[in-house]
Amino acid sequence: MDSTLSRNPLPQVITYLAAMKLKEIAQKLNCELRGAANVEISGLAGIEEAQSNHLTFVSNPKYFRLVKETKAGAIILGPDGPETSIPALVSQNPYLTFALAIELFYSPPEPIPGIHPTAWVAETAELGDDYSIGANVVIEDSVRLGKRAVIHPNVTIYPHAQIGNDFLAHSNSVVREHCQLGDRVILQNGAVVGADGFGFAPREDKSYYKMVQSGRVVLEDDVEIGANACVDRATIGETRIGKGTKIDNLVQIGHGSRVGQHNVLAAQVGLAGTSHIGNHVMLGGQVGIAGHLTVGDGVVATAQTGIARSVKPGALISGTPEMNSSLWKKNYILMHDFPELVKTIKRLSQEVEELKSQQTEQTKI
Amino acid sequence: MDSTLSRNPLPQVITYLAAMKLKEIAQKLNCELRGAANVEISGLAGIEEAQSNHLTFVSNPKYFRLVKETKAGAIILGPDGPETSIPALVSQNPYLTFALAIELFYSPPEPIPGIHPTAWVAETAELGDDYSIGANVVIEDSVRLGKRAVIHPNVTIYPHAQIGNDFLAHSNSVVREHCQLGDRVILQNGAVVGADGFGFAPREDKSYYKMVQSGRVVLEDDVEIGANACVDRATIGETRIGKGTKIDNLVQIGHGSRVGQHNVLAAQVGLAGTSHIGNHVMLGGQVGIAGHLTVGDGVVATAQTGIARSVKPGALISGTPEMNSSLWKKNYILMHDFPELVKTIKRLSQEVEELKSQQTEQTKI
Amino acid sequence: MDSTLSRNPLPQVITYLAAMKLKEIAQKLNCELRGAANVEISGLAGIEEAQSNHLTFVSNPKYFRLVKETKAGAIILGPDGPETSIPALVSQNPYLTFALAIELFYSPPEPIPGIHPTAWVAETAELGDDYSIGANVVIEDSVRLGKRAVIHPNVTIYPHAQIGNDFLAHSNSVVREHCQLGDRVILQNGAVVGADGFGFAPREDKSYYKMVQSGRVVLEDDVEIGANACVDRATIGETRIGKGTKIDNLVQIGHGSRVGQHNVLAAQVGLAGTSHIGNHVMLGGQVGIAGHLTVGDGVVATAQTGIARSVKPGALISGTPEMNSSLWKKNYILMHDFPELVKTIKRLSQEVEELKSQQTEQTKI
Repeated sequence: MDSTLSRNPLPQVITYLAAMKLKEIAQKLNCELRGAANVEISGLAGIEEAQSNHLTFVSNPKYFRLVKETKAGAIILGPDGPETSIPALVSQNPYLTFALAIELFYSPPEPIPGIHPTAWVAETAELGDDYSIGANVVIEDSVRLGKRAVIHPNVTIYPHAQIGNDFLAHSNSVVREHCQLGDRVILQNGAVVGADGFGFAPREDKSYYKMVQSGRVVLEDDVEIGANACVDRATIGETRIGKGTKIDNLVQIGHGSRVGQHNVLAAQVGLAGTSHIGNHVMLGGQVGIAGHLTVGDGVVATAQTGIARSVKPGALISGTPEMNSSLWKKNYILMHDFPELVKTIKRLSQEVEELKSQQTEQTKI
Repeated sequence: MDSTLSRNPLPQVITYLAAMKLKEIAQKLNCELRGAANVEISGLAGIEEAQSNHLTFVSNPKYFRLVKETKAGAIILGPDGPETSIPALVSQNPYLTFALAIELFYSPPEPIPGIHPTAWVAETAELGDDYSIGANVVIEDSVRLGKRAVIHPNVTIYPHAQIGNDFLAHSNSVVREHCQLGDRVILQNGAVVGADGFGFAPREDKSYYKMVQSGRVVLEDDVEIGANACVDRATIGETRIGKGTKIDNLVQIGHGSRVGQHNVLAAQVGLAGTSHIGNHVMLGGQVGIAGHLTVGDGVVATAQTGIARSVKPGALISGTPEMNSSLWKKNYILMHDFPELVKTIKRLSQEVEELKSQQTEQTKI
Repeated sequence: MDSTLSRNPLPQVITYLAAMKLKEIAQKLNCELRGAANVEISGLAGIEEAQSNHLTFVSNPKYFRLVKETKAGAIILGPDGPETSIPALVSQNPYLTFALAIELFYSPPEPIPGIHPTAWVAETAELGDDYSIGANVVIEDSVRLGKRAVIHPNVTIYPHAQIGNDFLAHSNSVVREHCQLGDRVILQNGAVVGADGFGFAPREDKSYYKMVQSGRVVLEDDVEIGANACVDRATIGETRIGKGTKIDNLVQIGHGSRVGQHNVLAAQVGLAGTSHIGNHVMLGGQVGIAGHLTVGDGVVATAQTGIARSVKPGALISGTPEMNSSLWKKNYILMHDFPELVKTIKRLSQEVEELKSQQTEQTKI
């Protein structure tokens, strides 16, 4: 393993590009341009913060009303977007075009090619070409790493991990032994892939015996794991995160779970062991899922939902335990009058009692 | 401190053992064997995933019905287990036996003896025999470490920490100054033992003054702390985790808390400061406990429970704030008809009003 | 960059000071002393744990009753504090005085001046005077660091970060590229400042396109970030934490959020992207805040509150979604009788039905 210092002693340049004319941006983003082609744009901003040198966007009809008030120099909008007096770029997907526009104005510091002299790469590790291995990185025995890996300082890759091309690992992230990562996987800082699952066998004296966690984690292509998030290895077999699924910070994925493709798990979500999640699922922040159950394709759970039973595809759910979101909202509103309701019921009980006794009286008559 | 490189340049062997005959497994696990002794077993699997070369198990009567359908080559079950046509190993504790069986087929990569050349061990640190200190580990002044410590890369142990025998610390875990750890303590990746408690004194101008956190953390024997979990040091005195207690990933233990023995705290549980938890307690995922209260022995709290008051021993609780689980479930089911209920009450109010006015009429008559 | 070893090979002294006489403590803390001036005090303790050699305090009238029973050698209390037979120090702010008293008896291990030989500091980084840079620390290109920085082992500071004076970073914490930190900022172990925000643009095929996170994080003066907590960089612009705000362990601050001054965010709180929080706000443990909303000055949210809408200044809120805390408590108590209530309503329905039919009968008569 070549461990020669190949780091550039010069400062990294902050790659804020100079201002561009709108027509140039339109060309690069492949958008139809409406209005003044020569507006100078020097950056991007949200529709409410934008100034005359900014390009902004509008996608959600909910915000169309803000277009009249924006101070932006130009706006990205859809073919069915609102009327506007400012120059516009027309896109089938304004939000995606906005994302691409950011890349015209900013890119993160360039990774420094080579292996930093303080990094430790085991002799038995195999690295693809064009890597950037940062300071104090540790790559252990028999690791296999694809091309163009960018590994920031203080990352640890345990023995026998197998990782695809274009791996990006931020500082303090970890890939544990035998785990398998596809292409273009991103680990944010402190992400832990493959720590031991939480598996213990109770003994007769009520103490717990630690079960060796013999399984591994598989992250398919294009998965991103957020800062300090954890994906536990399986007791036996594997924990699998499907292609394109994005996992936010501080999320917990329990051992043996199977998460499908192109899901979005917001911060602090927790999946107990052996959860099975379909594709295109969206879990809001702090959602919890009990173990050994199945969440169908396209399910959306609002923040803090506690999923205690399997959920059918396409359901929109809320509450702990979960229920249909619209019922949950209705109940929430009604709960504001709950104390009054209880009083009403007490009053009704009395009144009915009185009515009954009066009726008895009358019947006697 | 001996800092000689004693690392093996050869690849670690993946220790999946070759297939074994069932009779050999029965012998090693000390189980009675029923049925064909010569079945070849090459690994373990859950009852639904198992194939003909796998050993599986059944423990919970809830899953007895699956025994008829399993494709497993053999099964571990209890003396009162279900009838089965496949070869069986009989155990008093099938789940524990299954845990032991895993160890026949898999063991994690062997730690490399010695101190890695990139590790830093302070001269004043005392290490017991037979250690494995990984790359870039930092062991600071006056640390005392027992025998057979296995410390993975990028771990930091602050000054004056005292740690027992058979310590296992995964990469990026931390033990802060003056903390005390018993024997056989395990820290998963990124676990933090002894960070400052969240203690601030409000000043007259509504700003906060940081209180020096002079206390420490004590982890008793056989405690395991999950990945990126945090156990805060006490402001004064100690935060203590009792013998055999297992703490899952991303759990927060507030300063000055006392957690008893053989508890199980699932992922993302949070204990505010000065929580007192008994023994044999089970807290489900994302449970929160307010500070300055007591949770009795044997309490079970289901996932996401918010414990706001002290809880008597043996209680089974749910909800925020907590209540008896069976009441909570009953309420949950009834809440599905809550909008109907509210309508019914409104209707009843009207009807009672009418009845009253009619009765008044009749009385007049 | 000077990388000479300047570490002291001698063990750090545990700085528990010897016992002090109460009059000496009174003098140092600038308090009026009532009672025996010569009591020997060797440490501090809570009012229930304190022994005769301890100084304790009482601040909250709720605990005044404990003063009669305490075994403490002396007590800090307010001018309107309870009667006591033990020696007392009188303070306008007993809790703050207690905090200051801790510092008389304990201080953490002294940082070792200089740069540890295993640390890596880029040539283009600028460091203020009097630093302590620990083992395996990585400080990358063009970082600017103020005076008196104390950086513990395995910390990574990415290129172009700008950090004020008196920075304290515990092991494994991270400051990402371009982030700006004020004076006296503290990062506990594993804290991540500036990881990528969770921003993805949906494509037509339902996959997600990662948006470059071009913004940064700004932490103003006197901010503290807890262990393994995460403050995400903004997609564009900045995520900002106001002066003096204290953030506990495992908290998530979403991209583009603005958190005001002197707030207290307890452990495991989660803020979705673009949350706007005022000043002097207190969020209990595991509180969640949905994105794109505003929480006014002085709001207090109890633990596990789920804030789904903007909240007016000064509100005291609870529940998911949030409601007025007193209503929420009332409902909680009433829910204990909910099954009975439902039965009552069913009974009433029947009785009213009977009354109606009887009345009809009578009317016929």
